[in-house]
This record gives sequence, structure tokens and C-alpha cells, in this order.
Amino acid sequence: MKKAKIIGAGGYGGVGIVELLLKHPEVEIACLVAKDQTGMAMSDLYPHLKGFCDMTILASGDLGTDVDVDIVFFSTPDGVGMNEAQQYLDKGVKVIDYSGDFRFNSALDYADYAGRLGKPAEHHAESLLSQSVYGLPELGLSDFGQADLVGNPGCFAASVLLGAAPLLANDLIVEGSLIADCKTGVSGAGKKPAPGFHYPARYDNMNAYRLSGHQHVCEVEKQLGKLSGNEQPITFTSQVVPATRGIMSCIYAKANDNTSAEALKDLYESFYAGKHFVRVYDASADIGTANVRGSNFCNITVSKDERTGTFRVVSYIDNLMKGQAGNALQVMNLLLGLPEEMGLDAPGQYP
Amino acid sequence: MKKAKIIGAGGYGGVGIVELLLKHPEVEIACLVAKDQTGMAMSDLYPHLKGFCDMTILASGDLGTDVDVDIVFFSTPDGVGMNEAQQYLDKGVKVIDYSGDFRFNSALDYADYAGRLGKPAEHHAESLLSQSVYGLPELGLSDFGQADLVGNPGCFAASVLLGAAPLLANDLIVEGSLIADCKTGVSGAGKKPAPGFHYPARYDNMNAYRLSGHQHVCEVEKQLGKLSGNEQPITFTSQVVPATRGIMSCIYAKANDNTSAEALKDLYESFYAGKHFVRVYDASADIGTANVRGSNFCNITVSKDERTGTFRVVSYIDNLMKGQAGNALQVMNLLLGLPEEMGLDAPGQYP
Amino acid sequence: MKKAKIIGAGGYGGVGIVELLLKHPEVEIACLVAKDQTGMAMSDLYPHLKGFCDMTILASGDLGTDVDVDIVFFSTPDGVGMNEAQQYLDKGVKVIDYSGDFRFNSALDYADYAGRLGKPAEHHAESLLSQSVYGLPELGLSDFGQADLVGNPGCFAASVLLGAAPLLANDLIVEGSLIADCKTGVSGAGKKPAPGFHYPARYDNMNAYRLSGHQHVCEVEKQLGKLSGNEQPITFTSQVVPATRGIMSCIYAKANDNTSAEALKDLYESFYAGKHFVRVYDASADIGTANVRGSNFCNITVSKDERTGTFRVVSYIDNLMKGQAGNALQVMNLLLGLPEEMGLDAPGQYP
Amino acid sequence: MKKAKIIGAGGYGGVGIVELLLKHPEVEIACLVAKDQTGMAMSDLYPHLKGFCDMTILASGDLGTDVDVDIVFFSTPDGVGMNEAQQYLDKGVKVIDYSGDFRFNSALDYADYAGRLGKPAEHHAESLLSQSVYGLPELGLSDFGQADLVGNPGCFAASVLLGAAPLLANDLIVEGSLIADCKTGVSGAGKKPAPGFHYPARYDNMNAYRLSGHQHVCEVEKQLGKLSGNEQPITFTSQVVPATRGIMSCIYAKANDNTSAEALKDLYESFYAGKHFVRVYDASADIGTANVRGSNFCNITVSKDERTGTFRVVSYIDNLMKGQAGNALQVMNLLLGLPEEMGLDAPGQYP
Repeated sequence: MKKAKIIGAGGYGGVGIVELLLKHPEVEIACLVAKDQTGMAMSDLYPHLKGFCDMTILASGDLGTDVDVDIVFFSTPDGVGMNEAQQYLDKGVKVIDYSGDFRFNSALDYADYAGRLGKPAEHHAESLLSQSVYGLPELGLSDFGQADLVGNPGCFAASVLLGAAPLLANDLIVEGSLIADCKTGVSGAGKKPAPGFHYPARYDNMNAYRLSGHQHVCEVEKQLGKLSGNEQPITFTSQVVPATRGIMSCIYAKANDNTSAEALKDLYESFYAGKHFVRVYDASADIGTANVRGSNFCNITVSKDERTGTFRVVSYIDNLMKGQAGNALQVMNLLLGLPEEMGLDAPGQYP
Repeated sequence: MKKAKIIGAGGYGGVGIVELLLKHPEVEIACLVAKDQTGMAMSDLYPHLKGFCDMTILASGDLGTDVDVDIVFFSTPDGVGMNEAQQYLDKGVKVIDYSGDFRFNSALDYADYAGRLGKPAEHHAESLLSQSVYGLPELGLSDFGQADLVGNPGCFAASVLLGAAPLLANDLIVEGSLIADCKTGVSGAGKKPAPGFHYPARYDNMNAYRLSGHQHVCEVEKQLGKLSGNEQPITFTSQVVPATRGIMSCIYAKANDNTSAEALKDLYESFYAGKHFVRVYDASADIGTANVRGSNFCNITVSKDERTGTFRVVSYIDNLMKGQAGNALQVMNLLLGLPEEMGLDAPGQYP
Repeated sequence: MKKAKIIGAGGYGGVGIVELLLKHPEVEIACLVAKDQTGMAMSDLYPHLKGFCDMTILASGDLGTDVDVDIVFFSTPDGVGMNEAQQYLDKGVKVIDYSGDFRFNSALDYADYAGRLGKPAEHHAESLLSQSVYGLPELGLSDFGQADLVGNPGCFAASVLLGAAPLLANDLIVEGSLIADCKTGVSGAGKKPAPGFHYPARYDNMNAYRLSGHQHVCEVEKQLGKLSGNEQPITFTSQVVPATRGIMSCIYAKANDNTSAEALKDLYESFYAGKHFVRVYDASADIGTANVRGSNFCNITVSKDERTGTFRVVSYIDNLMKGQAGNALQVMNLLLGLPEEMGLDAPGQYP
Repeated sequence: MKKAKIIGAGGYGGVGIVELLLKHPEVEIACLVAKDQTGMAMSDLYPHLKGFCDMTILASGDLGTDVDVDIVFFSTPDGVGMNEAQQYLDKGVKVIDYSGDFRFNSALDYADYAGRLGKPAEHHAESLLSQSVYGLPELGLSDFGQADLVGNPGCFAASVLLGAAPLLANDLIVEGSLIADCKTGVSGAGKKPAPGFHYPARYDNMNAYRLSGHQHVCEVEKQLGKLSGNEQPITFTSQVVPATRGIMSCIYAKANDNTSAEALKDLYESFYAGKHFVRVYDASADIGTANVRGSNFCNITVSKDERTGTFRVVSYIDNLMKGQAGNALQVMNLLLGLPEEMGLDAPGQYP
């Protein structure tokens, strides 16, 4: 068995990767590290794990954290992985970071991202940026078998990129016309209570937020630019709805020729041929976020308003799976030379 | 006291107008008519009304339905009002119809609408269409004091029209670039149980539907055409989220010049000056559908992605109030010569 | 117009009484005081109030807080009202306190209550306790027209007392057999975010809590003791379910004779004759918390398992109305000599 | 691989067992039968299963339904299994029925049950009743290795029996004092839409129902009678809350001696020693239905109100797992001589 270390085990990203690793046939959890809740059993923090993961959550540097592992997951906020990744890479340990720390290949790009969050622009591991890989295998932009250091995508970014990639890769749209209207469940904001996510404040409430510019746009624009050879700005609207899991993104763009909806669907199917976790459906299919809930799949429909010449792509993911821990496990498989779907090829529970 | 008759009292549109009329100082309920649940007390169908509205729900034609009234509400599906409106108008009774029957001024326009619903194209009261008035007072397109017959807007339409009207009225956008991405709570689908609205099927589920063309688009395009002098197609996406009340519409359009977000906000405030039920907020305001829940207000923010030259308007309403019964009561006030806000000027309950 | 001051305006209890006073024909809001959010407009804190209550929230002692008023609401945690009530009473101002500070008539009883919350046992206004009145008018235990100082009931307590009072007043049950199984929506825990009320932690989650003894039991036992002349312990279980508003309490007790369910219903109807806000329904009625949502009503069904000789009473209230602000307004009306139902006699909105 | 047939595949009980069998290492699905939706792919009915279970749903008697199998699941309403079980038993196929058809060992007991549902009292396979086994392995009442025909428990019954069994088995309580106050999520009512489970009618609504006697009480009383040697009536209240999965039952009974809460906990731990799917927690543990969501576990806390001498047991299950398909799979394992936990030993996903 290979071994994994999880840093930031206490949050939703941490418990998500723990749940997945508990079912994985080839990789096991070596140790759990967190900043808060140290000294607690993981199963005291998450009682559903009683009997499955009773390991103690350790503080960084505690006895027991310096174990040999094959892979480290940083399920941590921006600014943690950049300070600690090098030490693992030096030992030949693969690193997957959930934050924005390694989603970019230059300090300049990172600074743009950090600025949108009101965080310091400086990157503390600039030298690593050139080797970091953006962790969305379906885009076909990298050889993960050769990678050591991966920035796991933002949840909105994964949703929009999977929805929009074929449009750009096939050069189908008018530059500057791309719009992503994205709705997320509340778990996307993490585990920490906040006024806007208090049950009574959220139960019958939907809203748009951060209208001046969500930080996930940066990575979307970068990756789409790689696909199209021509980076271009997109209009992006982040929204929260009263759900727990799920992102539904509606993506709009002006067609640059008369490609039909049917032809577009064919192009999507070609682009995602062999990509296990992306499924393209008819636009009339009765699907929603509930149908990807708990699984690593991205379900997509494509359609077109012929009157306005506008493509409409709807992309559905579980923000905690394809948008976070599920995708991270998929990347882990690739980094460790295991079959991409290992431990992930399951449909979720319904309802 | 003036008197109102409600046809289709058993549904959400019916109970909504009943609740409002119970609080209205100048208009009282004369009789309740429905197709189902006849013979029941309204308060047996809706137990919260016990002691407030214990009237029996009558069948059309029952003794007690032929009472003198000043106004009739048709809270009925398409195809009912068109068969019955004339008899009320002949007696000088004002008519407000919630369906699509009187939202258009020509049989051709109605046929387009009906076709999208898979309903017969023929209109049974063609001669009335020229006098029917589209019931959204804030657009400033009609003199409601002179009107007798009003088609109450569709809920999505109300939301999109209030959000988009100033863009068109001020000729600010590139033709064909208008996109409306609309999310509704489940009550918009009415009271009748259906698989997609069964609690376990809906509780953590959001989805887009009717992607080939929602019927509310027709009236939006007609009304915006009147404002701009130039009817144009819009791209529209209807979505359902796990909420009960509320519509959030994100409206996008390419700016046709360099109007700034600030200037746009000024134009919105001017357009809605004196329009009591529309409130324009800063784009950074922390608002959502919960803040219009139970009230007749439409809250709007405007912003712009300067990089793409795209305006973004977010419009929030309660689909059962400004999107249905609340707007109908507002129109009733105007038709009866009462102050527009009478019985409506209240903030809803929170949380 | 009479004038009211609200201390603790920022929480759910504060906004609840503000909403009600805005609709009250005889009492208006003179000033809003809070500990946090001072300096904000009430309508910035609660955007649905924009245009309805734009008053600034003041800090205690700010200019503008020393205004002449007829009544003060302390919508504050335990320990605030006891320190400030005297100064208002001295000026002839009536006081209604939402906390446990004035729900008891002796320091000893208060100490028991405080102990269950882990709070200091000492009461800072012991001399006022003998004159304080427990604020549940339907129990018929006090003359509110003579009262100056009222302790508004706890939400669970209001629910259980209204459900159980006729059992005790009519001496129908075996001593020690009374059980109250109470489920509340999340708003009962107030506005402050907490891990257990974070949307993702609560959305499909119900749980029992504080099983060693909820503090509301104390006042239930005291008041039931006054009705029966014989204070007795009750078994009480507090639970939270994924709802926002509403308390459903199931109350069980062994019958001490062969009183039938029908006879019990008659006794309940007699006990609550003339009590506007309590409605007794058949046990087969299709009612739930949604039917009291937003209103000050308590709906009750009574039944009996004849095989075990056990009475079962189910009591439904809106925890923020009859369980808090609605009841406080009702008490205010009585204290000020106004009709008990004034400003409260409305059915709520559905759905 | 052994083979399973699922009759009634279209409902929640059907999709639940399909999901579990897809993960089971030793048993695979041979065919799916249903009354409605025949001819559809299972993955069209449940899109999350696309690529996992694309089998066609067959009508009874269709070509392909007469396959050799080792076990049949009747996920059907009362009255189906009784007509069809014999033919499978004759071929040596094991039968697990989800309905009440085989939960009783006499026609008289069945008639009592059926009467509460307003169904015909007659049982069509009376001769099978003596060999049918009540399917709750943790009660220790049967040798499942010898059984051929099992009645899977009702969801409420499973919850109450697991909570109450040690009280009765250890003779701890006063006869006639047992009360079960049970709250279920909406999925317990199945997949079929109904007015009370329509999203807008349910979202902020909890209610008690069928107060004259829920049918699950019959089997609870029978099984508890077997444990105590003395059948006795229990008082039972079924309630629905706005959740999808989960049952929380609060069970009360008068202690017949001075057994303490600590001693009670020890007795529970002894009773459930070696019972993998029952976990006993401290009464102060922060647990709810969310912690058993998606898993086959039953979590229990025990406490006592010393003042009233009343035991309080709180039992948490996922109604679709330990309350239905999960328990059925556990029973299948036992019937087929497989390890009891096979394919079931997983913690669910959180949140």
C-alpha cells in the first residue's frame, strides 16, 4: 500500500479525501494534520467515521507527522502549501495542493489571483511555479505521469473549464463573448460558520456575490487561453443557492459560425472521448446536480439559441468531488501511476 | 368596500391574492371559485386561514358565484380567462388574468406563446386582445387607470423585464446580446405535486429545464421591443433551485458604448424614480431573494465587467408576490383608482 | 401613538418585534439599541426593511436613546434586563424581557435556571422578582392590566405550556408521567452562526441535545405547578430539525382516569375558549408548523392511546412569533390597555 | 458471483439495493423488474447510474425475467410478495420482502397490521407465515443462516426496535410505559409525489400524522414481546420533518428499578457487543441523523431523567439504509452465508 498524508484534515476538503482514501485499494492514510482540532480523533470531529478513521489529528511538527509517505494533500487555504511543498518534493513525495498556490505558472499570475482575494501578492515558492501542473486531467494539457506538484482546480473553475473547453479548443466562439453564470451549494464556502451560511439566513435564499471579480476567473482564463492559444477575458458571476453540494454553471458564448447544436454535441463527445468522468447528455435530459451528487462525474448538456447565435452549455458537478477531493484523488492516481478511476468509479447515492 | 371574485382560488396564486385581500382596507373577497376542492372551506384547504377566510370554495356556476363584484382575478391556467372574461367586462367588471391569455395584443403573438407550451394556438377571445394591457406598471407603457383587462406577467418575465427595461429604454446594448439566466424557487411551478418537485428529488438539486425555449420569453421580447422600438431575441435559461420562494435573474448584455457601471446605476435609479416597488442597490450590497421574500419589491444591482464590456444586472423578486399575486394586487389598485401601494406596502418577515 | 424602545434590536427577537411594530396602529418605534452593529441603519442589517425602518441602531447611552417611551423590549440574553429594568420602571415605563431574567418570582428559582445554562446563579434585581409576571396570557394566571414587568416565555416553554396546561388545570394525569418531546427549527438558536447551524451541517440533520436538562424546563414546571397546585418534574427532550421557523411539541402523560380523547378535546376547547391565539383541531387534521408560520397562533391536537391510557397532545407554534416576538407584542397590548390581538391578528403567508 | 433479482426496482427501495449491489463483491444484479417504467434503462430513470446500471427495467413475465438467481428482493408494496414468494422458494431461491407481507408469523397478526393501513385483512400465503423470519439480525431472535424467507422491517420499526430492545430484554421498564416519538425524513414516504411532500409544502414544515395508530407499531410490539416474553402496547407517534434521509426516535419508559444512566449504557453496550452496525454513544455526544446518513449504522444514546425515573433512548438511522435497503443487504449476506458486513461497511459521505 502506498501512503498519504493529509494536511488540513479538519475541513470539508480533508474529510472528503479521507472518505475516498478509506475506500481506495492501493493508498492508505498515514497521518492527518490540521491547525485546529488537533488532539481529537478524526471520528470525534466527524462521528460518521467512527470505526473507520479513529486516527488522532496531529499538529504540524507533532510526533508522528514525520512519516514516510508517497503523496501529500494540502487541503489548506492559500499560503500554506507554498511554504511547505518544497520539503516534500525534496524527498520525492508528490504534492497536491487544493489552494491557488500552485494553479499558476508565474508569480505574476498568482499575484492577480491573490489580489482578488485581498491577499498578499507575493508567492513564497516562486521557483516551484514553473513545474507546477494545473490539475484538471480532462483538458489534456499536461502529462500527469511526469508531474510532482499539482494545483487542484477551484470548484467553480473545474465546472466552467469542463463546460467551456471544447468551445475554445475547437475555436467556435466570438472572442470576449464568453459568460459563465455559476451557482454553488453552500459547502463550497467550507466548514466555517458565517452569517450568510447560517441555516436561517440561507434556507430560502439565493444571491450573487463578489460581482467585482471572483478569484477563480483567473485560472479559467489561463487554462482556456492555453486551449485556444489566445487568452481572453470572460464574464463570470458567482452565486450561492440553498443547497449543500453541487455546482451548476451555465456558459454562454456567441458562435463564430453556424455550428449547430447537434454538431456542437458531437464536438463535445469527441473532445471528451475516453474521459471517464465527463458525460455529455441531450439538452432535453432530465438531469440536475442531484445526479452527480457524491460522485466525481461532470454532466454536460449543450444547446444553442439559433435566433441569437448563442451557445449554451450547462455543466453539473459535485463541488466537493469533481470540484475538490474527488478530482484530487483522480490526480493522485495519475501521479502514482495507478488507474485514473481507481477508488472513484461509483455513482453516489440517491436521493 | 369594493368586492373581488377569485377564480382558481385553490392554487398558490389564489391563496396569495386571498392573503393580500384579507389585509386590504378597501377591497374584500366576495367569492371564491375553483375547479377542484369545491365545497371545502378555504381554511380547510389552507389551515393557516382558519378564522380569516372560512368561505366555501364554489364551483363555477354554483349559487353564490353570481354576485356583484368590481374586479375578477383569474388565477387559472392558460385557456380559462379567454373564455370567461367577456361576460365580466360586459358588466363593467375589471379583469386581471394570471395566465398568458391576455399578455399579448395579437392572436399571432399568443400563438407563438401557446406553441411553446404545446397548447392549441387558437385564441378564443381574439377581439379582446387589442384592449388587453400587459400588467407591469413599472415599465410605464400603459395607463392602467383606463384599462379594463390586464394580463398579469409571468414570474420570470416580471423578473427579467424589471432587470432589463432600463437597458433597452436607454438604448445601451448591442442588439442580440441580451441573455437572461433565471433561477426560480419551486413554488413557481405551482401547487400540484410532480416528480421533479417531490421533496427528496429536489432538496439538494438544481437544474436547467426547457432549454429549447421557455414560454415567458415571448412576453419579455414583446415588452422590451416596445421599450426599445426594436424587438429582438433574447437568450433565456430557466432553472429551478431548492428554494420555495424567489427568482434571481442574472441579465447580461454587451454595452454599445462606454457607459460605466456608475452611470448605469444612475440610469436605473432615474428609470425607477417614483416606482415604489423597485429598489436599486450597490453591486456590493449583501442582498438575496430572502430580502424580498413575502414582499412586492424587486431589488436590483447593476455592474459591468469592463474587460469584456458586458453589463450584468441581478434582479431579485418573490415569484409569488411581484411575480404573481402581489403584482396583481398592485394592478388592481390602479384599475380601481386606489393608491398603488395600498395593502402592499410591507416588508415581509425575516428569516 | 405610544412609543417603544427595543434593546437588542439586532437579533431575530429584535427584528421580529420591529416588523410587528411597523404594522401596529397604536405603537411606534422610538429607538433601537444594540451591542453590536451600532451605527448601522436597521435596514442595512436587514435589507428587507429598507424604506420601512431606516433608523440607526444606537449603542446604549448614545444620544437619542434617552427618549420618552411607554414600553421597553429587552430582546437580550440573560443578565441584561436585570441590570437595566429598574430605571425604566422608575419612570413608569413598562418592561418586557425576552430572557429568563424575569420569568421567575424568586432568586432560588432563577438560580436553578441559570445553573442549567452554566451562568452565574446570582440575580442582580432580586427585589423585582416578586412583581414580575410570567408572560403567557392564555394560562390565565395573571392580570396583565396591572403588570409592569413581564418575563416573556422561552419558546419551548410557550409550546409545552400551551399544550399541557389543560391537562394540569383539570387534574387529568398521573403525577410524574408528563413527557415533552420538542422539536424546533434553527432560528430558535438565534442569529449567531455556529457549527451545528451551518447550512451544510444542518440541511439533512436532526438531533437531540442538552439531554441532561434544558433550561426551559424550569419555567414549565413552575407554571404547570401553579395550574395544578402541585409542582412536579417533567421529562423533556429538546431537538433541532432542518427547518427555520416552528416548534412541534409532542406531550405525553398517563391518564389518571378514563377520560376519552373526545372528552379531552372538549376540555381543551373550554380551557381555551376566548383565547384568540389558541386553536384546537381534530387529531386527524392535516396540520403542521407551516400552518402557524409567521403568525401568533398555537395549533393543538389531542388524542389518546386507549391501550396504554396515554394522552398525546401535539402543539404547533412559530418559535419567533408565539414563541417570542409575537407573544411579546400580545403582552405589550395587554400592558398598554390595547386590544390583545391588535396588530397581530393575521394568518401568515403560505407557502 | 451469486445473482439477485429485484422486483420493484423503480422506487427508492429498488434504487437503494441496486446501488449497494453494484458495490458488492459477491452478488450481482441479474434482472430488474417493475410495474411502471418498464422498458426504460435503469440509468434513464436514475441518471446517476449511467454507465453503472444501464439494464432495462422489465415487466413481470417479460423475456429475461426467468433467470436463475440466488436471491429475490421484493421492494414492493404490501400484497405483492405474498403472491409471488412461493414460486421462488420452490426453486430454492431466498426471498427478502420489504413490505409487511412476511413480517408476521400468523394471519391474525398480519390482519391487524393490514387493517391499520385500510388494506384487505386476508393473507394470500398464509402457509408461508410460519417460516418467515423478521429481518432484524441485531435482535438475536433468529438464525438467519437457516432462513429462506425474510420480512424486512419497517423503517420506523427498525429504529424503535434497535432503540428499545435492551430495555425489554433486560426487563428494565414498567409495563405499558413505553413511548416512541419518531421523526422521519420524507424519503420514508417513497418516491411517489404527494401534496404533503411537495417541496413548497414541506420545506419549513413538520407534523405528526396517523395519530390513531401507525402500522409499524404492530411489528414493534410483536418483536419486543418476543424479547420480554410479555407483549405489551406502546404509544407511538409518527412525524415527518423537512429532511430527506434519517429517522430520529426518542424512546421513553419508566424504569422499574433504580438502574442508572451509566448502568443502562453498559447494558446497551453488552446487548450490542459484536453487532457491527449499532454504535452506542455518550448522551452528550454531538451526533444526529447526518452522522448515519448513507450508512447502515444505528447510533444510540441513552440517558435518564432521575427526577421522574424515566429512561430516554435516542436512536438514529438512515431510513433508506438500516431502515430499508442497507438492512436488506445485511440480511442477504446472512442468508447467502456471506460475511454480514460485506459491501456495507462504509461510513457514508459528509456533509
